[in-house]
Amino acid sequence: MSSPENPPEQTNSDDVGFRQLQKLIREMYYEKDETRGIEGTFMWLMEEVGELSSALRGGTHQERKEEFADVIAWLATIANVAGIDLAEALNEKYGSGCPGCGKFACTCDDAEKP
Amino acid sequence: MSSPENPPEQTNSDDVGFRQLQKLIREMYYEKDETRGIEGTFMWLMEEVGELSSALRGGTHQERKEEFADVIAWLATIANVAGIDLAEALNEKYGSGCPGCGKFACTCDDAEKP
Repeated sequence: MSSPENPPEQTNSDDVGFRQLQKLIREMYYEKDETRGIEGTFMWLMEEVGELSSALRGGTHQERKEEFADVIAWLATIANVAGIDLAEALNEKYGSGCPGCGKFACTCDDAEKP
Repeated sequence: MSSPENPPEQTNSDDVGFRQLQKLIREMYYEKDETRGIEGTFMWLMEEVGELSSALRGGTHQERKEEFADVIAWLATIANVAGIDLAEALNEKYGSGCPGCGKFACTCDDAEKP
């Protein structure tokens, strides 16, 4: 995904790549994930989405961080089972600008997606 | 996120970092996202989750890729509005192994999360 500049961020840890995450999740959970299948795994994702909603409504910053991590981990799990490369998916859909208007700073009408 | 090895992947595009994606989405959409707020943005996320479910049930590989990209883009959007660094969140929760058993190849009971 192209980005004209990449200034240093004021955070405590390194960036994580989508492909790197999928590999980690695959090594950690793939056998269980494959047995559970896409439908069973989707149920877990939905549970975590509910927990994220709850954390966004009333949770602490730390709780929100944890729920975001869980939702993304389950998405990575489903992507692994479905054979989807998330980095490739993101590059294709967003790597050349907004899918609506094609601009890197979106000029779509506010009522339109996204 | 530590990983003992990182073999070359057979894919068509570079890896994408979570921090890199959040920066791109911020540049592309932040003004709209902030106006819409967390609750309004969560509604869009849910719509995209529904579309992902539909693509997983009966879509093509290409449609699944596009819906995964959209769900992740909306998660990145909400994370931006909520001030969450997804890379930091993932490093903290999964960077030291499974949050349940602490192992890099999970040994949790199958009935347990995750």
